[in-house]
Amino acid sequence: MKPINIGLLGVGTVGGGTATVLKRNAEEISRRAGRQIRLLQAANRNQARAQSLLGPDVDVVADAMQVVNNPDVDIVVELIGGDTVAKELVLKAIANGKHVVTANKKLLALHGTEIFARAQEQGVMVAFEAAVAGGIPIIKALREGLSANRIEWIAGIINGTSNFILTEMREKGASFAEVLAEAQQLGYAEADPTFDIEGHDAGHKLTIMAALAFGIPMQFDRCYLEGISKLEGRDIKYAEELGYRVKLLGLTRRTPAGVELRVHPTLIPARQLIANVNGVMNAVLAKGDAVGPTLYYGAGAGALPTASAVVADIVDVTRLLTADPEHRVPHLAFQPDQLQDLPILPISDVVSSYYLRIGAADRAGVLANITRLLAENGISIEAVIQKGSVSDGTAEVVILTHRVQEQAIDRAISGIEALESITGKVVRLRMEELND
Amino acid sequence: MKPINIGLLGVGTVGGGTATVLKRNAEEISRRAGRQIRLLQAANRNQARAQSLLGPDVDVVADAMQVVNNPDVDIVVELIGGDTVAKELVLKAIANGKHVVTANKKLLALHGTEIFARAQEQGVMVAFEAAVAGGIPIIKALREGLSANRIEWIAGIINGTSNFILTEMREKGASFAEVLAEAQQLGYAEADPTFDIEGHDAGHKLTIMAALAFGIPMQFDRCYLEGISKLEGRDIKYAEELGYRVKLLGLTRRTPAGVELRVHPTLIPARQLIANVNGVMNAVLAKGDAVGPTLYYGAGAGALPTASAVVADIVDVTRLLTADPEHRVPHLAFQPDQLQDLPILPISDVVSSYYLRIGAADRAGVLANITRLLAENGISIEAVIQKGSVSDGTAEVVILTHRVQEQAIDRAISGIEALESITGKVVRLRMEELND
Repeated sequence: MKPINIGLLGVGTVGGGTATVLKRNAEEISRRAGRQIRLLQAANRNQARAQSLLGPDVDVVADAMQVVNNPDVDIVVELIGGDTVAKELVLKAIANGKHVVTANKKLLALHGTEIFARAQEQGVMVAFEAAVAGGIPIIKALREGLSANRIEWIAGIINGTSNFILTEMREKGASFAEVLAEAQQLGYAEADPTFDIEGHDAGHKLTIMAALAFGIPMQFDRCYLEGISKLEGRDIKYAEELGYRVKLLGLTRRTPAGVELRVHPTLIPARQLIANVNGVMNAVLAKGDAVGPTLYYGAGAGALPTASAVVADIVDVTRLLTADPEHRVPHLAFQPDQLQDLPILPISDVVSSYYLRIGAADRAGVLANITRLLAENGISIEAVIQKGSVSDGTAEVVILTHRVQEQAIDRAISGIEALESITGKVVRLRMEELND
Repeated sequence: MKPINIGLLGVGTVGGGTATVLKRNAEEISRRAGRQIRLLQAANRNQARAQSLLGPDVDVVADAMQVVNNPDVDIVVELIGGDTVAKELVLKAIANGKHVVTANKKLLALHGTEIFARAQEQGVMVAFEAAVAGGIPIIKALREGLSANRIEWIAGIINGTSNFILTEMREKGASFAEVLAEAQQLGYAEADPTFDIEGHDAGHKLTIMAALAFGIPMQFDRCYLEGISKLEGRDIKYAEELGYRVKLLGLTRRTPAGVELRVHPTLIPARQLIANVNGVMNAVLAKGDAVGPTLYYGAGAGALPTASAVVADIVDVTRLLTADPEHRVPHLAFQPDQLQDLPILPISDVVSSYYLRIGAADRAGVLANITRLLAENGISIEAVIQKGSVSDGTAEVVILTHRVQEQAIDRAISGIEALESITGKVVRLRMEELND
């Protein structure tokens, strides 16, 4: 059978990794795909650098549009990133009747609905395993492996930078700023780390997973985002004492009132497998009504792990190339005419347990006042630890609550902060047992 | 589109679970599959019981061959188990041009090569996600998710009964016999538990995974099997002291000399995620050259988790129904003409680290003799703990070795057991770090 010709857009880390994997495992891959897969053409702004990286067998051009318009290219692999140029190229590739493989989570989380609609019209496939959790085949698991289930919720450690920082903070007792600097030196964090540490990247990935799990449109703009930059080391320490780890979790859950879609630091029980996912590793815990909890763990980033997902998509597309579009796996797990526009819940309506740290003047009656305010707002307490007086005469009270709506906890916190004996702001972290 | 008609063979635990999932999640499933999936006919020896379970909408018959020969049945779901009647039915279904979904690991591990060849000739699909690790979509991960990789090794906790027993032995300090009795009471172990505790079940599953990972034929008869029935509580305790957990692991690894295919109790570092998979849960750790290690965790048995995999296969087959056979995902991950007959290594050629427990008369010189024998056989030592004298005047020495071929360790053990000061047999367990 004639080889499949790949056109590669972007020869950076993942693009280089993709070329490496295609070359190194060429035999293994064609034994699986049933035909040879050939990197025919690649586009990179720095043409010379890409040419020396890819060698003389690949036609390297500077203009990505040339690849997209090349009639010999069967599959366009978009690894440029972002949602401007990449969007234009992907839409043009689809219009040209080419299949697309992309690792671009931002593009899909923001414009996925439009892109998949165009692909549907043109009868082409858009595959995106690499967009979520790098080399872990989580898209395939949600779309195909769990297709018998009503998926109830998904919780993921889906940003390696943040997980590295949280792991180091816990293991070394270091501050956020110290560990961030270390992560930047190791290349685990960008010079401007906002995208990773403030939850944007995790939010993009969570948006995509929620669409696949629940059959809803991509709606990143309704995703609640809270990062890890304000986390203090002592809260990680207190959480540990109480049997919990703090992780930046992407959480989406179907409730009768709507879909929760939220990224924030979260206390999870240390006995949970996912609480023990450390360093830059990623993991996704998905709960289906039939299968129960299932967990998927692996490298969430890096040249070769991400290339693993890109090339798996290329093999998938190759295997399905001649299947009629009606009988391929639908892009978003559900048939395109079967998507539902479930409401996304505002964060104030979300139900969670909470960790509260309250600085208080160390005197009788303070705890009584706090617990009274919690009770008045319908909040029951699971655990309290009171830390002895510190040098300035104040004490710290740490409280774990049972599940309650976020607006109730916020009302209680306002009341607590207004108490005369309370010093400073109340620290509030969300807590999830992940076992229901 | 016209509904897909399912013919179900066997209405036991998993058969009942499959009917439940198909009914309960009918809407969700047809939104994914693009058409209705209907349980048309079912066969069960106890016809009345099955009819009352499945309700009046399903045509229940006593003779399974009637389902297999029913021209209205599109997909035959074989949940009878075993490799006699089930084999006959599956081959007949294939001959009749029907697609088959099966959870039957024994059938595939023993007769998979024949079954897949017949399916290939007839242009039908045989799907078997439920045959390995219950609801965890590990077949799909190995066959499709990791298709870019040269898979290096797979290590799995793939027998829930054994893992439950080992977990209880560790947590409660109970003996094998005590926990087995408890497991039988809870329904986690059969009255005759041999199949689970002696590694047969794990061996079937491992055989299937090795075929998918390496593109080799199924060859269960060459799989090394060693169960957990001889494990003593104190070895679990000593392993724990040294930072290890003991798990019944199915291990397959590609080496330059051949493929390792072995099931046995194994010490693994407690810091490894897979070491913390407890109770009846399953997990598979797969190492690909591009993606690195990836782990898949979930329920390995039970009515609904197994049904989750059965129904996912039904959805897969439905989605691909009209694809031409050339362009479906190959049954064994690799194209049928691309299988390789790599040799399976005998256990004596396998390389591993070892845990040794040696009972010795508590006197000077014993350890020197032991270490001399190890050195003479080219075995270097990673750790030694010596337990003080016990009441009968003997001591116990526990040694962890570095990696060495099994025949070397066996020679050393023979030498050690021949020493005058040694009491009883040397206990030898294999140990794997799972990080290379």
